[in-house]
Formats: sequence, structure tokens, C-alpha cells
Amino acid sequence: DRPLSIIAGPCQMESRAHALEVAGALKEIAARLNIGLVFKTSFDKANRTSASGARGLGLKQALPVFAEIGSSLGLPVLTDVHEAAQCTEVAQAVDVLQIPAFLCRQTDLLLAAAATGKVVNVKKGQFLAPWDMANVVAKITGGGNPNVLVTERGASFGYNTLVSDMRSLPILARTTGAPVIFDATHSVQQPGGNGTSSGGEREFVPVLARAAVAVGVAGVFIETHPDPDHAPSDGPNMVPLREFEALVRRLMAFDALAKAADPALPK
Amino acid sequence: DRPLSIIAGPCQMESRAHALEVAGALKEIAARLNIGLVFKTSFDKANRTSASGARGLGLKQALPVFAEIGSSLGLPVLTDVHEAAQCTEVAQAVDVLQIPAFLCRQTDLLLAAAATGKVVNVKKGQFLAPWDMANVVAKITGGGNPNVLVTERGASFGYNTLVSDMRSLPILARTTGAPVIFDATHSVQQPGGNGTSSGGEREFVPVLARAAVAVGVAGVFIETHPDPDHAPSDGPNMVPLREFEALVRRLMAFDALAKAADPALPK
Amino acid sequence: DRPLSIIAGPCQMESRAHALEVAGALKEIAARLNIGLVFKTSFDKANRTSASGARGLGLKQALPVFAEIGSSLGLPVLTDVHEAAQCTEVAQAVDVLQIPAFLCRQTDLLLAAAATGKVVNVKKGQFLAPWDMANVVAKITGGGNPNVLVTERGASFGYNTLVSDMRSLPILARTTGAPVIFDATHSVQQPGGNGTSSGGEREFVPVLARAAVAVGVAGVFIETHPDPDHAPSDGPNMVPLREFEALVRRLMAFDALAKAADPALPK
Amino acid sequence: DRPLSIIAGPCQMESRAHALEVAGALKEIAARLNIGLVFKTSFDKANRTSASGARGLGLKQALPVFAEIGSSLGLPVLTDVHEAAQCTEVAQAVDVLQIPAFLCRQTDLLLAAAATGKVVNVKKGQFLAPWDMANVVAKITGGGNPNVLVTERGASFGYNTLVSDMRSLPILARTTGAPVIFDATHSVQQPGGNGTSSGGEREFVPVLARAAVAVGVAGVFIETHPDPDHAPSDGPNMVPLREFEALVRRLMAFDALAKAADPALPK
Repeated sequence: DRPLSIIAGPCQMESRAHALEVAGALKEIAARLNIGLVFKTSFDKANRTSASGARGLGLKQALPVFAEIGSSLGLPVLTDVHEAAQCTEVAQAVDVLQIPAFLCRQTDLLLAAAATGKVVNVKKGQFLAPWDMANVVAKITGGGNPNVLVTERGASFGYNTLVSDMRSLPILARTTGAPVIFDATHSVQQPGGNGTSSGGEREFVPVLARAAVAVGVAGVFIETHPDPDHAPSDGPNMVPLREFEALVRRLMAFDALAKAADPALPK
Repeated sequence: DRPLSIIAGPCQMESRAHALEVAGALKEIAARLNIGLVFKTSFDKANRTSASGARGLGLKQALPVFAEIGSSLGLPVLTDVHEAAQCTEVAQAVDVLQIPAFLCRQTDLLLAAAATGKVVNVKKGQFLAPWDMANVVAKITGGGNPNVLVTERGASFGYNTLVSDMRSLPILARTTGAPVIFDATHSVQQPGGNGTSSGGEREFVPVLARAAVAVGVAGVFIETHPDPDHAPSDGPNMVPLREFEALVRRLMAFDALAKAADPALPK
Repeated sequence: DRPLSIIAGPCQMESRAHALEVAGALKEIAARLNIGLVFKTSFDKANRTSASGARGLGLKQALPVFAEIGSSLGLPVLTDVHEAAQCTEVAQAVDVLQIPAFLCRQTDLLLAAAATGKVVNVKKGQFLAPWDMANVVAKITGGGNPNVLVTERGASFGYNTLVSDMRSLPILARTTGAPVIFDATHSVQQPGGNGTSSGGEREFVPVLARAAVAVGVAGVFIETHPDPDHAPSDGPNMVPLREFEALVRRLMAFDALAKAADPALPK
Repeated sequence: DRPLSIIAGPCQMESRAHALEVAGALKEIAARLNIGLVFKTSFDKANRTSASGARGLGLKQALPVFAEIGSSLGLPVLTDVHEAAQCTEVAQAVDVLQIPAFLCRQTDLLLAAAATGKVVNVKKGQFLAPWDMANVVAKITGGGNPNVLVTERGASFGYNTLVSDMRSLPILARTTGAPVIFDATHSVQQPGGNGTSSGGEREFVPVLARAAVAVGVAGVFIETHPDPDHAPSDGPNMVPLREFEALVRRLMAFDALAKAADPALPK
């Protein structure tokens, strides 16, 4: 029952300057709050709703920036991989390899990520039950890598809607044995909900994050951006950077209570 | 943002002695914790999965017991009604009339309950979206009764399963204007899951209750029983009475934090 | 494997003249097609989305019209009941008592309907799995009435949407032993989808009806109206009366094929 | 409204002999029935539930067998691809590249498949609404390849269950403009339903196939095997080869009726 950690950053790496600016701001917030923070950003949005959606800076340009964030700011870095062949190269520049939810059953990708020895954060597919993730995690640990995180990010609920089943969090912990992360950003996504892009409801990020932390999780994943309404992807569900610190502060209080042995009665 | 209240009691009234025993125990717990508590029990389980399921003591025998609990213990009492013709008589013995989820669209029942002037607690149908409840509440307030509570108790999710969407809680509050109750007992029900009765997963009652209170609710509904495994109905999802006080104590701590203006950082 | 029957009529009885006009037209169509047809209309829409929705002619005015349709046109008549106390009286004027989907678990209503000895058509709740209906049917047959029909009308699928699981049709037949009806009208409903009324997608009525008949059913339920766009309820999902005959004719061809022992190859 | 085609074969290529045996049997059946048939088998099951599941013969061994089936039997061949880098090589040996449902949003894979100029059959993700597939198809046609098929294979419905929404078939046709295939095999899958493998309910393959053909589709996808109960994958939902001909014969009769301008009344 270690204290809550945070995985945060902008959905995609828009430029070196943008990534460094957001990472620097997040580092300061984490220091003020005394909380562990992993910087997350994607070098390639490989599964956009539509082919016309911006995909990010790309692997070649992004890797030096990842390395720079790690070395100059001292922040651990997470990014997602989409094909087995990418894993080795990406692993040289980041600390955590993330498996996207749609790809969580792709055996070769899981094995390649496992083989890097890096921490692997695997997102639960929207089409899976929480107990199904034990098989997914076993593919990674069976590949000789015990450093696995599992992330809840909502389950398909009718068309263009996800629902977050809070029972999933203890079920994931019990059946996989891995630390459980709650992705508060993508859980409020409305997949395909805007026609050629996914919609989202940013107002529910704190709602679901509070619920998950009260249930008890190892970490929360929150995408944040200085100007979400003009971000190239996931804008509708990213938290404005100016609201990020207060949100995390509140989550830390819930986390302390969730993990306390015997809380005092309120006066 | 008044402090959390609790609606609690055994699923059905098994006997006068049983009801008084549980009500007495709950009154003591509520006094120790300094929390508002409404005693809940059903005089008739009118929609059991199977015709062979026990239905409870019945209206005639139950009404004097309801009145006795109110007068001798000073606890407010809630029970559910199933036909319009019952409302007037039941209202004479209880403080809150509850509309079962399956019946939340039955206009005559809602109007009859409204006409008693009592508080009406209407449960959200498993087949409704949270925003659909505005029309349901309007049937009651349009009948001249502003004293309405709305209760979230899960949404249908595939077969024999319910899921609790925590976004529903703020949506219900905003769209109906009524205080929102989270029913932690029936949200963990597996409807029809045992063939001729409904299953349930008691272990998830605290999980979902904590999540809901962290999001922010006016009250939590928790069925409790001295010996749930031998209860005539809803045994699989009732909380053992001996665990009830610790559960509520923990929920009160989450509630205080959820409603605090500016929580301190954990040390 | 008897040939397909049809249950059809306008959603609610708007007036004596309107009911007789539609019933007369349906009788002529049924005679031309040589198909068994039961006339359906509701005397009271007791669970409208909103209290301001029109509810129909009411019990007292409707019963003589039901009797007149039966005696003057020779059409069997079906209508729905909502409270146990209505069953005896309604049974004197109609041939089939229908239990609405929301009420399919209300034991007293099922028993009262069973006690009339009339055929009881019970709709599967949107919140039930098909195998759950065995318990519902057992309440009626256990009440001494073997004349039960079960109707599939869609299952909750996220918010404001229903989905028709075609596997449900053989499962209902096998687990209940009763003839299975497919309600093509309410299966395309979008519950609460228009804010203060339910939406629907009339264009999918033939789609789902064809699918169900190809799977194999005893009957199809289709609401029809001379002018659905101006009907007081269920307009969005009623079939225009002028399209009804061609639709049923096509369904009859699918039905013959579905029930044929060994169909010839198309040339 | 061309007559129905069939995509059929064993889930995975178990050996050269096995593939040729089944392909030969299917070719004879197709000739007897005078129906277009595409032979389907997978060289690699890249997303098994568990890492211990058999994955098939592999790319290198399978490609010559695909080519042999095409040249010696004259059957067009379909297989699925999982990474962009495979597309060019696989395209040299087969006629149709299939995109697995989990991967239907992976832009690079879609573009690589499109670039081969072969027909691309893309399966609808279990997590997508039918109208979301317009964006998926646009990725392929935007890549300069107009030869696209879209396949319905069920939507997530709670945990470990899929449901086939028959409305999806006309919606896919209208919104994508592509011929629509109904995958009757994977639509009856119970994902993860057996713990370390997916379950299935073979008995519902004809049920859903009949429904889909009655609605109207360009083709049906049916996995078949001489001994499904001993097949290394998807056994629970494959049709025994000895039942295949009668099933297709029946589907052809439904197809002729579905596409007939004005069917005669049954006598």
C-alpha cells in the first residue's frame, strides 16, 4: 500500500519545446506535492479514428526528446509502442513501455516489450473483462519480465460509450498481482463520438479519478495540456494544466484515507 | 453539502422481533457515529425472480411494526410500494415511500406516492440513462410533492450483470435537482444469476460505496442483516451487521473529505 | 412449426372510430394474405417517458370497443394490463392479456393475469437475459394457466439504446416451452432518446422482423398506424399502414422457408 | 444484389495436408451448390487469449500452401495479417488480406494492406459502432485501394459476451459503401469465456447466419473443420464440415428470397 503515483503528460508529443515545457511544469508540481510522477506522451498516435488525425512527432524525432526529459529533468518517461519491432529502440530512451488497449492481446508485441526488461504498462482492452487480464499479464511475465502494470480505461457500453466498472480495480489487483493504474482520461472518452474523432467529457475526469483512488489504486493516469481545446488529439478529455495540481492534491488526500488502517471519525 | 446519511436495514421484514432487533442495533450504531439513519425493510418482495421466493410479512402485519419502530426507537422508516392503491395506507406508518427500479416509469404509482406528501425515494431503472430520471422526478414534483430522492442502483450490462457508472451521480444531481442516494447493495446484484434467485457479490459493497461517497452523494443505501447467508432474500449482497459500523465509519471519513473545501496534503 | 401469426394495431386506442378503422383495414389484409392476426391496442399508456404524454382512452371507454372489434370484425384482441386489479375486468373484453416488459417480474400481476384463464403474452424485460424468462413463465403456468406467449423486445445496450439478440429466440423457446413472439416495433425503440419521449428508427422494423422470422418464431408483433408521424405515442417506430401488407407478405415467405424441411436450391 | 458468397475454412492452418484436405472438400461443395467460395485460414493466431494457445504453421511455411491452394484448386484464398511489414509478402500468395477486429484502427496496417492492391476485408472492432467503420474504410480507400469488404463479428455486450446487432448490416452498407460480410463464427464467440481460451456456442452459428442473410449481406464467413472439438483454436464455434453443405444450402435459399423483388406468397 505505497502512496499514489501519477502518470501524466500531453496525449501526443507536439514538438520538443512543447514536451519540455509540460514536463518541466509537471516536475515542479510533483516536487511541491511530493508525489512520484511519470511523464507520458506518445510519439505516434497509430490508431486515430480517422486517417486525417495528427499522429505526433514520430519515433526518430521523439526518442532524443524522451532521453532529454529523463536526463535533464530526472523524470521517468512512459510512451506507447505499436509494433514488436519498435520495442528495443524505444526502450533505450524511456522507462516504461505502454501497450495500447486495442493491442493488449497481440502476443508478439507483449513478448517484445517484455524482452526489453523495462516496466510494461498494459492497458485493459475495452472488450475484455477484468479477469481476462491475467492471461495478458502472464504473457509478459512468462516472457521473463515481472515488471508489469495494468491499467483500467473503461469497458465498451453500447455504442460510442465507455463505462468504468470500479469493481475492476480490486479484481485486476487480485487476478494479475500487478499494480493497478486507473486511466481517468480515456475512461471518459466517447469513442468515435465526434464522427471523425473521439469525443470526451473532461468534467468527469475528477469524478472517476476520485472514485478509483477511494477504492484503492497504485496510480492514476491523467493526460494534461496547457490548452486542451486546441490540442491535436484527445482534447475533449484532457485536463487543463492549470487545474492539474489541485486535482492531484485532492486525489492524494483520498489516497491517504483509502490506505489508512483506521481513519478517525470526522468532527 | 450536508453530511452523509444512511438508509439501512434487512431486505425484507421477516418478523416483528427480527425487525425490532435490527432497527435497535442500527439506532445504537447511528448514535455512536452521529449520523442520520433511515431504517429500511420491505413488507412484500413483489418481484422475486421466482414465484417460490419468500415475499415477507405482508402489508397488514408490517404496518404496525413500522409504526412501532418509528415511535419506540425514533428512527425514520422507509419501505417500498408496488401498486398505487397501497400508497395512502403505507404512508400512515412510514416516513419515506420508495419506488422500485422496475416501476420507476409507472405514472399512477408515482402520482399516488407523490399525493401522500411523504418523501418519495425513486430508484433509477436498470434500463434507464441517468438523464432519463429528470422525467421521472418531474412526474412526482408535478404531482405537487417536492420531497424526492433519486437512487442509483446500477445499469444493465450484458446478461445477468449490472455496472455502476459513477458519472451517473453528478448527472442525476444536476438533471433532477434531487438529493442522490447510492444503493451499494443492489448495485452488486447479479440479476437472475443463481437460476431461480439473484446472485450478488457482497465483497464489492464497500468498493462501490467508497467510490460513490468519494464522488459525492447525499446518502448511501446498504442492506444489512445479522446472518445474511440465511436471509430469505438478497443474502448474497447484504452486509453482515457486525461489519456495518466499520463500513459506515470509513464512508463518513470519505464523505468529509469529498465535501471539504480544501483538503490538507497527507503528511 | 405452425405458420407465422401477426399481432398488430396502433400503439394506443385514440378513439372508437380510429380503432375500428385500423382493425377493419388489418382484417382485410389478413384475409387477403390468409394469415392469423390478433388486433393490439392499449387503453392506457401507463409508463410514458414523461407525465405530459397522452395515455389513451382509458379502461372504461376502451372495453366496449374491444368487445365490438371482437364481435363485429371477428378479430381476436390483445391489450396490456398494469395492475393486478385490472385483469378480471379486461379479460371479459379481450382474448390476450399482455404483461408489459417493465412489469414482467411483478408476481401479483402475473398471477392475476393467469387466473383469468386467458392467453397471457409476457414481454421480456429489457433488463433480463432470455433464460431468466423461464421463472417468469413458471409464475403464470404455476398459477394454473398454460396459455403463455413470450415476447422478445430487445435488451438494454448502453444508454438510450436497445439491441435485439437473435439467439434469444431459440433460447426463449427452449427454456420456457412457450411460443415466441418477436416485437419488431419496440425493439427499434430508443428509450428516452428524444428527451421527453422515446425515439425510434422505423426503418429497422423490417430488418429485425426479417431476421427474427428467418431464425424462426411463432409470431411477429408490429405496431402500425395510418399516420405514424402524428400518432400520440411510439410514432417513430410504427410502420405506416400502407406499407404493412407488403411487409407481412415478405415475412410470410421467410417464414415458409424457415419452417420448410428441405428447401430447394435457388435457380 | 449479387448472390451470396461464402468465406470458409479452418480457423488456423494446422498442416499442409490438413489445409488441402479441407480446401478440397469445400471446393466440391461450392461446385455442387454453384456458389462463390473463398478459402480462409490463418497462418498465425497472433492474439490468442493465452500465450500457451497454438498459433498455427507460421508465415514461411504457410505461404507456399496458400499458393498451392490457389493454383491447384483454383480457390481464392483469404488470410489475416497482423503487422504492416507482413502485407507485401502475404499479398503475393493470397487474394484477400484480412484485418483482425482488434487491429481495425491501426492506421499503418490498413495503409500497408491497401498498398498491396489486393482486396482488403476489415473486421469491425468489438468496441466500435457500425457507423464508426466509415473512417476505417476511408483509411483504406484513401490509400488508393477501392477493393474493401467490411465484416460484422459482434459487439461487446457486458463481460465475456458478444451480441450481433442485425441493424449493423444495413448501416455498414450505407455508411461505408462496401460489401458487407457477416462472420457467423466469431459472433458466437464468448471472449475469454473458458478462462485461458475463448468459448463459443456453435449451435447459434446457423441462427445468426440465417438472420443476417435474411436481412441481406454480400457474404457469410463460416469457419469449418472436420473435427472442431479437437481443433487447436475456435473449436467451440466452428461448424463440423459434415454439416457445412446443408447450412450453406439453406442460407442460399434465404439469400434468394432476401434479394427477390417480389416474393410469392407461400401456398
